[in-house]
Amino acid sequence: MKVLHLTLATIATVLVLAMTPFAQAGGPNLVVNLDDVLAMRSAVKEEGRFRDAFQASKGSVDKRLGLPINVPLPKDGGGGFTHERHKQNYKLMYDAGILYQVTEDPRYAQRVRDMLLTYSDMYPALPLHPKRKPNAQNPGKLFWQSLNESVWLVYTIQAYDLIRETLSDAEMKKIERDLLRPVALFLSEESPATFNKVHNHGTWATAAVGMTGYVLGEQDWVEKALLDLSKSGKGGFLRQISDLFSPDGYYNEGPYYQRYALMPFVTFAKAIDNNEPQREIFKYRDGLLLKAIDTTIQLSYNKLFFPINDAIRSKGIDTEELVLGVTIAYGLTRDSGLLDIAQQQESILLTGDGLRVAQALDAGKATPYSFRSQAFSDGRNGDEGALVVMRQPDQALVFKPAAQGMGHGHFDKLSWQFYDSQEEVVSDYGAARFLNVEAKFGGRYLPENKSYAKQTVAHNTVVINETSHFNGDVKTGNQHHPELIFFGNDERMTISAAKIDTAYSDVQLKRTLALLRLSDDRSLVVDVFDVASKNPSQYDLPLHYQGQLVDTSFEVVANAATLPILGQKNGYQHLWLKGVAQPEAGLAKVTWLNRNGRFYTKTLLNDGATELLFTQLGGSDPNFNLRSENSFIQRKQQARAHAFVSLLEPHGEYNPAREFTIGAESQVVSLSHEKSGSVDVVSFGFADGTRYLLAFNSEAGATPGQESAFEIEGTRYALKGRYQLFELPQKG
Amino acid sequence: MKVLHLTLATIATVLVLAMTPFAQAGGPNLVVNLDDVLAMRSAVKEEGRFRDAFQASKGSVDKRLGLPINVPLPKDGGGGFTHERHKQNYKLMYDAGILYQVTEDPRYAQRVRDMLLTYSDMYPALPLHPKRKPNAQNPGKLFWQSLNESVWLVYTIQAYDLIRETLSDAEMKKIERDLLRPVALFLSEESPATFNKVHNHGTWATAAVGMTGYVLGEQDWVEKALLDLSKSGKGGFLRQISDLFSPDGYYNEGPYYQRYALMPFVTFAKAIDNNEPQREIFKYRDGLLLKAIDTTIQLSYNKLFFPINDAIRSKGIDTEELVLGVTIAYGLTRDSGLLDIAQQQESILLTGDGLRVAQALDAGKATPYSFRSQAFSDGRNGDEGALVVMRQPDQALVFKPAAQGMGHGHFDKLSWQFYDSQEEVVSDYGAARFLNVEAKFGGRYLPENKSYAKQTVAHNTVVINETSHFNGDVKTGNQHHPELIFFGNDERMTISAAKIDTAYSDVQLKRTLALLRLSDDRSLVVDVFDVASKNPSQYDLPLHYQGQLVDTSFEVVANAATLPILGQKNGYQHLWLKGVAQPEAGLAKVTWLNRNGRFYTKTLLNDGATELLFTQLGGSDPNFNLRSENSFIQRKQQARAHAFVSLLEPHGEYNPAREFTIGAESQVVSLSHEKSGSVDVVSFGFADGTRYLLAFNSEAGATPGQESAFEIEGTRYALKGRYQLFELPQKG
Repeated sequence: MKVLHLTLATIATVLVLAMTPFAQAGGPNLVVNLDDVLAMRSAVKEEGRFRDAFQASKGSVDKRLGLPINVPLPKDGGGGFTHERHKQNYKLMYDAGILYQVTEDPRYAQRVRDMLLTYSDMYPALPLHPKRKPNAQNPGKLFWQSLNESVWLVYTIQAYDLIRETLSDAEMKKIERDLLRPVALFLSEESPATFNKVHNHGTWATAAVGMTGYVLGEQDWVEKALLDLSKSGKGGFLRQISDLFSPDGYYNEGPYYQRYALMPFVTFAKAIDNNEPQREIFKYRDGLLLKAIDTTIQLSYNKLFFPINDAIRSKGIDTEELVLGVTIAYGLTRDSGLLDIAQQQESILLTGDGLRVAQALDAGKATPYSFRSQAFSDGRNGDEGALVVMRQPDQALVFKPAAQGMGHGHFDKLSWQFYDSQEEVVSDYGAARFLNVEAKFGGRYLPENKSYAKQTVAHNTVVINETSHFNGDVKTGNQHHPELIFFGNDERMTISAAKIDTAYSDVQLKRTLALLRLSDDRSLVVDVFDVASKNPSQYDLPLHYQGQLVDTSFEVVANAATLPILGQKNGYQHLWLKGVAQPEAGLAKVTWLNRNGRFYTKTLLNDGATELLFTQLGGSDPNFNLRSENSFIQRKQQARAHAFVSLLEPHGEYNPAREFTIGAESQVVSLSHEKSGSVDVVSFGFADGTRYLLAFNSEAGATPGQESAFEIEGTRYALKGRYQLFELPQKG
Repeated sequence: MKVLHLTLATIATVLVLAMTPFAQAGGPNLVVNLDDVLAMRSAVKEEGRFRDAFQASKGSVDKRLGLPINVPLPKDGGGGFTHERHKQNYKLMYDAGILYQVTEDPRYAQRVRDMLLTYSDMYPALPLHPKRKPNAQNPGKLFWQSLNESVWLVYTIQAYDLIRETLSDAEMKKIERDLLRPVALFLSEESPATFNKVHNHGTWATAAVGMTGYVLGEQDWVEKALLDLSKSGKGGFLRQISDLFSPDGYYNEGPYYQRYALMPFVTFAKAIDNNEPQREIFKYRDGLLLKAIDTTIQLSYNKLFFPINDAIRSKGIDTEELVLGVTIAYGLTRDSGLLDIAQQQESILLTGDGLRVAQALDAGKATPYSFRSQAFSDGRNGDEGALVVMRQPDQALVFKPAAQGMGHGHFDKLSWQFYDSQEEVVSDYGAARFLNVEAKFGGRYLPENKSYAKQTVAHNTVVINETSHFNGDVKTGNQHHPELIFFGNDERMTISAAKIDTAYSDVQLKRTLALLRLSDDRSLVVDVFDVASKNPSQYDLPLHYQGQLVDTSFEVVANAATLPILGQKNGYQHLWLKGVAQPEAGLAKVTWLNRNGRFYTKTLLNDGATELLFTQLGGSDPNFNLRSENSFIQRKQQARAHAFVSLLEPHGEYNPAREFTIGAESQVVSLSHEKSGSVDVVSFGFADGTRYLLAFNSEAGATPGQESAFEIEGTRYALKGRYQLFELPQKG
């Protein structure tokens, strides 16, 4: 029996065995192999993080082992009882399988066996799920959609692999014949659209089927998983790696979904690496999968992912998917910076790589993970815009000339966010959703996700005529993307310019953002947003800020007794208009106090003909679904061209606990902007007399080394390349 | 010279020396004595918290020693340059004085000497401060009010005491003659109204003058400080101890000001204890000062003080005043629970007691501080109501049948707050103030503090006819107080009832609040608020909650396109009316989600004739001074009597990071209330069938052991005493 199993399981990999002396004959061999098992068995005998994790898992599984097996007939949709129960079941089978290997206690294997046999009794007669969507391309049987069925198999095949050695011939036969093979065939041959699709659902399906192929000795399934059902390479896992990430490892939908998408990629890749190391899957496409794991970490601040597009704001680097990613990446690279992340994740996996992470942490090998400034290119070829991240100690600026990001993308071309001192300062609403809270629209995306959160006005970018980018149409959005003009990074600044001409017809949007570190260690954001339109139009530039308004340098006429909504559609209907101002030409300042106790002043270079609208979110919201967030909108009416020029200045500290407040006032005293040929010149000065001049060339066609000359205050300057910061002599 | 000094300084304490063998001859002797100094000198040679604190202080002082002395002519009011500079100066003199004693490095003493001599040059010719208030009773010379001058002397006399041994005869003479004596006389003989006043300002003055008396050998000043200028005992420090705190150590203005008021009490008391231990000052009035320190800690949750009355919400147990209090209390009591607090304070004082705390913490002697349920009596005799605190693990309920609390008190009789899982759930706005933020009304209390934060509608208690308690008049409020009817505490619950008949004329308000721990470890708050009025009136009961509204069991008609304000005055003008509902008779539920990830459902027993108004703060607020907080108000029109009966039920968990939501729905399925004679019977049941009955007798005149009988569902029950919880048989 055991012999038979080994034979079956190793036929497909016999070549591998010959080539790779370290591959294991016998024992499990997907994410965890026999070497791992032997090391884990010995590790749990000693004090340390790994043993702690083992004991926690054991305690939890032991408790559940006391309860009867429950494999209910599929009935409920997402979040419902049978849905959640089947999810719990696959996790329990996986956990118990691991515990069996580590403890060699047959009780764990028996529970997995009994659950698998129960599923085997039920599965062959199952129809499509009663809660499937009408005409669904991807119905499941155990679950309402096949995506969950794939996830079920990813876990279940690993559980089976972990306990197969304990099964009788008859048991093995029944489970494979009545359960594993039918599920794998259902997810592949019988669901070709999903299986062949270059999409996250396809990745789960190919991972499930491919891993099942390894365990059942069906190398053909592995090939189909890698290359698509016809082995053409037009779909399948390898194509998914090639197409779903940019060369920088950026996933089109943004970090929230990237973290989710990673799970089947790294799981299947690890199984491929254990079974067919000669494929060098982790080196595929210039080491793309490791890059994708690292990029997911890079797209976070203070442990949370940047909440661009549809994103639940509390998701961060401690999610289970990224725990797996970091664990596997550490196993491959032994990069001690990853241990820093693992430490913050506070979660140790019971796998061979998990053990390596635990032991390295126990040995104090972690070194600080290094967050860097980078333009993460978007698109499979890296030429569909980019998500730009600028970093300074304690700060991050996110600039988004990235592509639409499919159905979960927001209409927020060239938007930005800013973080400082552990808090969000210039913010993105994220998704309007209370995940799994039944009373809130069944826990799904709220109607306000579409009517507000996705709309352009919900973001920190220009809205033309109160209409969203691409007129709010996803299909149009997916056909276009911004162009990254340049990205630069030196010891004084990170700077980037980008443009898009397709967000609106006959409108050009171009923005340059720079995060500066000035010589007195002052930080400053410079923002120049150029808009041009064929027809006279209304240009709105909102800034969504986190904190309490403290001061304005101009009078605001507040709506004190009645609050109207700002508009009728495209998100405007959700904004209460709290006050209006029309500052005189010159500097207009808005200062707010963030919950981190720092002050932030936005200094706008005002033309005297731009209104400022102060808004609060919450209009047209009968179910109180929206958070009460604040913003102010610069509004330029009847314009054909306008440059929104401004600075964001973090300053001071409000410390009521210690009863002091320092630097509550902005120190910026001057700001000007002029164009000299293709060069933008932004000059600004501070109360202490220091003055600077930022020059940049954001012409799309400029060559990298191009030299431009310009004159300011009678002095000639030469700009070599894209950008330069000049310190000016103090005045007076 | 030195001999002379010793002689002078010890004349007054010669008796003490004879009596108390441990008192020190020579060296400083206010908060720090020679024993302390010797111990500190040795302690800084060894690793540990004390040495760390010493090095931090030394680093900071050394940096300031490099700057020139600046003793500016007094010019600015609070927050201004000369004001802040003189504050920095006294702190620097004190810190340098301590460092001199610890290091014996003469540079520190020289800086104190030079600063004192500079002050001595300036002080004699100083007029009253130019920024004093017109006709002020308490002008200062160095500062705009004498309060700051007292604080200056409290620090400065200690600095002088610490370095006096280094001075020449002439220096000593000049400093005492031209500075210390004139300031002490100015604060006592020349400011009798403040010095004799039984008020926090008086405490600072008596502490300053009394401590100066010890140092300059003026025992007469000490006597006057203790008993008032005429030594009558009608004022002075002892009377202040007697009158400003209740017998439970509760300070009339609430914990925010209590923490501030503590500082001169414990400082002067420690100096008295060092100089005249036979006074047993810390045993005075049954150990009142130690009780007051402990009570200040008790009136906090998750490190922050309960923000009742005028309170800056971020003030908590780590404030410098409470660091001093805890340090001195530990020195006296060696209570290891105080070390728990000291550990959280993360601040070690460079004093003898500070050393004792540091060493005990280094030795790991801290034990968990014990927060307890208690009715902290208010009023000098403890008979002017109480501040009631109910505790359960992770929870605190604050019930406020306390007295008005003078000028900083709010019109919030019988209000309450609730905390759970580290967050505020049912909240108090605190003070409307941005401390020291110049742009926000000069950093002073905002106009909205009076127009909103103090008003009754800003609190969780009944408002009659949209008018605040005592018609918003402080003087009237101070003449009255609620009556605590009873307070009870056992393993199942903490419960308290209180009433007030003077908040409005011809209106009786009575409230009973209970925090229950049910047998299944479920917690629940029961609230019964009885209102009776001679004339038909509008009764409003607001609930200010922290979080996002998730669900209501009834339809709310939202104001979607325009928000009106709720009223015209007494705080109502600041509330936007977001929606209105009139639930049918029966249970009406409002569920919200707090930032701690838990759900809270308020289940109201509704009569079908009570409206629910959903409001958001921010109306009539032209300068955006108010936070956007949410509340709902139960409104009963044209009533002569009504009982507001409700439950607050914490439940479930929202964990989007881990992608699960459990228990999002309230489990309360029934609630009823009846009166049977003097007994209130509140019955309630849960979805799992468990049912309870809470009976209580809140008649003001009832005797403690009184027995009452009542009948529910045909069963007779006997209530012995004030309250009892009965578990009922499950239904069906």
